[in-house]
Amino acid sequence: MSVRVASAELLARAAAGNLGAAARLISRAEAGAAEARPALAEAYRRAGRAHVVGITGVPGSGKSTLVGRLTHALRATGAKVAVVAIDPSSPYSGGSILGDRVRMSDLATDPGVFIRSMATRGATGGMARAALDAADVLDVAGFDSVIIETVGVGQDEVEIAKASHTTVVVSAPGLGDEIQAIKAGILEIADIHVVSKCDRPDANRTLTDLKLMLALGTADDAPDAWRVPVVGTSAITGEGIENLVDCIQRHRTAVPSDARAARARRIAAFRLEKTAENLLLERFQARFRTHETDRIESLAARSIDPYSTAIDLLNRTLHGGHVHEPLA
Amino acid sequence: MSVRVASAELLARAAAGNLGAAARLISRAEAGAAEARPALAEAYRRAGRAHVVGITGVPGSGKSTLVGRLTHALRATGAKVAVVAIDPSSPYSGGSILGDRVRMSDLATDPGVFIRSMATRGATGGMARAALDAADVLDVAGFDSVIIETVGVGQDEVEIAKASHTTVVVSAPGLGDEIQAIKAGILEIADIHVVSKCDRPDANRTLTDLKLMLALGTADDAPDAWRVPVVGTSAITGEGIENLVDCIQRHRTAVPSDARAARARRIAAFRLEKTAENLLLERFQARFRTHETDRIESLAARSIDPYSTAIDLLNRTLHGGHVHEPLA
Repeated sequence: MSVRVASAELLARAAAGNLGAAARLISRAEAGAAEARPALAEAYRRAGRAHVVGITGVPGSGKSTLVGRLTHALRATGAKVAVVAIDPSSPYSGGSILGDRVRMSDLATDPGVFIRSMATRGATGGMARAALDAADVLDVAGFDSVIIETVGVGQDEVEIAKASHTTVVVSAPGLGDEIQAIKAGILEIADIHVVSKCDRPDANRTLTDLKLMLALGTADDAPDAWRVPVVGTSAITGEGIENLVDCIQRHRTAVPSDARAARARRIAAFRLEKTAENLLLERFQARFRTHETDRIESLAARSIDPYSTAIDLLNRTLHGGHVHEPLA
Repeated sequence: MSVRVASAELLARAAAGNLGAAARLISRAEAGAAEARPALAEAYRRAGRAHVVGITGVPGSGKSTLVGRLTHALRATGAKVAVVAIDPSSPYSGGSILGDRVRMSDLATDPGVFIRSMATRGATGGMARAALDAADVLDVAGFDSVIIETVGVGQDEVEIAKASHTTVVVSAPGLGDEIQAIKAGILEIADIHVVSKCDRPDANRTLTDLKLMLALGTADDAPDAWRVPVVGTSAITGEGIENLVDCIQRHRTAVPSDARAARARRIAAFRLEKTAENLLLERFQARFRTHETDRIESLAARSIDPYSTAIDLLNRTLHGGHVHEPLA
């Protein structure tokens, strides 16, 4: 039986290198626990040292295998590496991608590596808030690199990958039409492109297509602008992983300071928006669930409509009084 | 140049069978136009006649091809058929899956068929609201079947597929691990399972696995409960499509009335929640964008944190006064 420890105490222990405490605080962030908010707010203010790398790609791109390889390679440079993986498992299954985690099992006994799966279920906006809170906690806990892995489908998932210092987009050869169309939507958020499965004969086509696309897009960039590299990797041969580590490290320092500051402002605005959305919807949904069952029958019979009902509900829920208690 | 027509007038024209008017009203629903809300509220109250079929499946499951085939087959029974396809293209590309739409091009000249793509971008919760508003407009416009097609990744997309009278989940043989893990999360929402690509030799395994899963799950069901069928289809041979049409029509009538009423209440609650969320976030985000740029700098510097800032922002935004103007 574990005694209930205050979140502030968990943060203090995490900062002293206790990974169990970090994991527990992350669980509270994921659950949206009000008690954890002051500690997460403090983690935010104390964080900012780690390099946060967002890695995204369509299902089947070999992203999770790449993250395993990259974690190994970054660890080999001496860095402490944490991974926050946003699982595409639905609210109905609640599980994580076992296959992918198993591939990382050889990392499980290294105290310089921390791997955490987070579910995509939960309150709207809550996933982005929780994943970025987790990155702060891991930053405070002394990790040098925090990798946030998301599937590149869904607006929130793509936004989370963008809310990092370096965004890596993973492509793979030989995926179908439907996947390719999804992929097209995430290509332009890349600071670094990876083409995985480069041991396959059709990988050259994918590499060439990406390079051509980039050549067309960057003709009038400023001379000191970051040139998005395209890195071919193979999980079978290990090819390209060192090059990827090098690109990630170069990107950290090579981006001009004004571009870096603009990106920091964009990420800050995103976090504020997601945190506020999450707090707002949480309160609204709690009210909704307890008070509104009586009108659902009329709505189901279509004798009233959702717009009028929603407006009335919002006015009654939010009219007057303070919305939120003070943080602590 | 088109003169600006009131949404109430567009609804009246749509109800008289003018599909151009229906399309324009759906565009306004998608844009979240305040002017369109009273007309969409009226469409909700007038709708309820059409059979709404949600079709979902993982990327690469052949879902869009199946929708094309199914649209043909339902149309052949004399029904007027509308399709609302939620595209997985991201906020960054804004496009639709061209390949899939092209496969349906032979349906484009039939006035008894209406096909509409909607983007997944836009305000949180707005996609579900807009898609279901579109279904109402098409119901009022005289369509007998409204198919809502979503990719089975992302909580909103799965919820939309559930918010229908009959939910069809499409699986396919031969997809990778990562895809299979995503699929596991959506299997249990099915009223009808489809295994597409049944011309492939490995399809039998997929069919058998699904049937076994269902046999394990339904042992203690009530005698009159709906038994979820598993339908194998092939877009190449046309196999199974008639069977699917039959299953969809049987599901409409075979579900016991108490189960149907419970489902209607669940869908009504979902619509109310999504509509309220959408109205709430829209208002909040509008305020946020105009007033909060001054604090982003401090947040980016981590001298303040997103929790305290969000709570302060919400209190200032929502304190006192009415949140929403009356609907009309």
